[in-house]
Amino acid sequence: MDYYKESLKLHAEHKGKIAVSSKVPLNNKDDLSTAYTPGVAEPCKEIHKDPKQVYTYTSKGNTVAVISDGSAVLGLGNIGGKAAIPVMEGKAVLFKSFADIDAIPICLETQDTEEIINIAKNISPTFGGINLEDISAPRCFEIERRLQELVDIPVFHDDQHGTAIIVSAAVINALKVVNKNISDVKIVVNGAGSAGNAIVNMLLSIGVKNIIVCDRAGILCREDNTLSPHMMALAEVTNKELLRGNLEDAVKGRDLFIGVSAPKVLTEKMVSSMAKDPVIFAMANPEPEIMPDLAKKAGARVVGTGRSDFPNQINNVLAFPGVFKGALKVRAKRITEAMKVAAAYAVANVIKEDDLNEDNIIPSPFNRNVAEKVAEAVGKAWEEEVRK
Amino acid sequence: MDYYKESLKLHAEHKGKIAVSSKVPLNNKDDLSTAYTPGVAEPCKEIHKDPKQVYTYTSKGNTVAVISDGSAVLGLGNIGGKAAIPVMEGKAVLFKSFADIDAIPICLETQDTEEIINIAKNISPTFGGINLEDISAPRCFEIERRLQELVDIPVFHDDQHGTAIIVSAAVINALKVVNKNISDVKIVVNGAGSAGNAIVNMLLSIGVKNIIVCDRAGILCREDNTLSPHMMALAEVTNKELLRGNLEDAVKGRDLFIGVSAPKVLTEKMVSSMAKDPVIFAMANPEPEIMPDLAKKAGARVVGTGRSDFPNQINNVLAFPGVFKGALKVRAKRITEAMKVAAAYAVANVIKEDDLNEDNIIPSPFNRNVAEKVAEAVGKAWEEEVRK
Repeated sequence: MDYYKESLKLHAEHKGKIAVSSKVPLNNKDDLSTAYTPGVAEPCKEIHKDPKQVYTYTSKGNTVAVISDGSAVLGLGNIGGKAAIPVMEGKAVLFKSFADIDAIPICLETQDTEEIINIAKNISPTFGGINLEDISAPRCFEIERRLQELVDIPVFHDDQHGTAIIVSAAVINALKVVNKNISDVKIVVNGAGSAGNAIVNMLLSIGVKNIIVCDRAGILCREDNTLSPHMMALAEVTNKELLRGNLEDAVKGRDLFIGVSAPKVLTEKMVSSMAKDPVIFAMANPEPEIMPDLAKKAGARVVGTGRSDFPNQINNVLAFPGVFKGALKVRAKRITEAMKVAAAYAVANVIKEDDLNEDNIIPSPFNRNVAEKVAEAVGKAWEEEVRK
Repeated sequence: MDYYKESLKLHAEHKGKIAVSSKVPLNNKDDLSTAYTPGVAEPCKEIHKDPKQVYTYTSKGNTVAVISDGSAVLGLGNIGGKAAIPVMEGKAVLFKSFADIDAIPICLETQDTEEIINIAKNISPTFGGINLEDISAPRCFEIERRLQELVDIPVFHDDQHGTAIIVSAAVINALKVVNKNISDVKIVVNGAGSAGNAIVNMLLSIGVKNIIVCDRAGILCREDNTLSPHMMALAEVTNKELLRGNLEDAVKGRDLFIGVSAPKVLTEKMVSSMAKDPVIFAMANPEPEIMPDLAKKAGARVVGTGRSDFPNQINNVLAFPGVFKGALKVRAKRITEAMKVAAAYAVANVIKEDDLNEDNIIPSPFNRNVAEKVAEAVGKAWEEEVRK
């Protein structure tokens, strides 16, 4: 199936992918007078008296804004807000299909950090959560952090945290397959963009001790004072041995390679230089850092990619629907580190010990149990944190 | 039926009134790969190459943002963005039900004119039109005018123009019933807010020559240099005779009274001072300027209100769904005066000459023909203007 051709056809046929539907009847004068004037004045007054009631009388509690400025869309780069709409509508379809959440694409004409923060803050009354999407690094870090300080609903940059949650789940299960300890393994992350950054921080949260990060210019090291502020932040929490060098140097003796970088950058030779039973997550899209068959030939024990045509597809759709579902249910004010860790373990635990093997470390995106399990775990984690 | 109590129940039961639905299937790997990655890259690329294609491959062309800052909601006043959500969701339900348009409520945290313009402009890529709602005068005038200069999709402040279209339709048919000429009649408009302002301008467009406007401080007259800029603008196109005085003076000898003001301000004595066969549109909500039975007793020939429990309900729902449907269909870049006039005549003409009488000058809000007729007329009017 030619997905590109079929996708054009599908989009043109339906003129986009989402619609609005009404949850109430509107067939006669009484319907009109309760759903709209004069009756509608009453829920308005109740919310005006007690703003919390907005969750009782409006759709806010189940509605998520999917906000993008189109600055880093898929592998396409900075194509702008208008051209990003098909992706954001796709995201809305996934939210609906996997978690029954009503998601609204908001694609922006501006790419200015201050404006994006201000706009997202000011449109927040209608929404129960904000999913930031396809916003380029390093702007995405500041936008997420400062926006979260301004609003009392969860803000979640999926390209960072969704990816980090699923990678962490995959790491947890892959280590069971190769029988290694999370606190012992040496990991190399290739790519220091928004996903790489979040993956590193989350791996540290789940107990990984030894990580190095590699970017186009080589291994990030805190002694390199040419690093940008966000690269330096990454260098400071990784590479305790102060290693320097290129990717070839970086992979030597490592137990896991995690690629969020570019096609074909990992060679068979590099794979064979890794520790025993190496695990490779090659997530560049659509073409991975190394093709799974080559990685296996070079000795990789477990291989995962972002693609649906190979085993172990590392796909965000396993995370964000359940994360928001859980957060909305308990009306969490933000997505904490503990909630993300809980989500990762929930995804990992969907695969029962007996079913776990090198080609089955992560559930299929169509496993409809996942979102529910993730939601439960995320909600519980928030409630435990609040109780503290 | 207690609409207030029922409305609270309805809103709490459904937790709001709108949801998002998917127009495409999502049951297997092929569905996921065409609706989302990797296939979705293709419509993105096409739109990036040719931005007009956003209308082919996304929902933009059928999606309207209903934007409010909650500064002038129903008769409730400035209750803010959050408390305004039930009204905006109601509006979305009406858009869907009457014109199959997907409307998205966007309720704002800010009431700053510059910010509202900037936000609406910057979120416009996703939308095919912008319905401004319940924004207080005089800010609403500037917001609408300046926003329309910045975007290439129609901007329509419904409280102004929707009301003006329906009042104009009611005037057209009421004058047929009392057998008077549009160019001869004398009209008094009571209330110089956003609706009053738009009504005056539209009545001038359909050929009314003699209008005076009254506000709390009395008849607007260009010789009064205490008037605010927008009141002065109104005074300059009305009251050629330079009349001064209060409402009692204003109604004397007038053929039509149009009230967009406050309950009970029009007395029976005032009605009896009007010209022969007076027409009264008393649209204050929920309690009109004069109750219909009192107006009739005092000699009114035709009476209309905003209420559904009396004949001749002057209700915006007859206008905005069709106006947007027509504008979206022809991809109009704005809503011109000619389009609004065409909409008014389309609404008026739904009542056939034989059915026209003093209790039937305006179609019922549930007449499902109206939106279609309005859409046709509005689309045609735009195409005629473009052709010029």
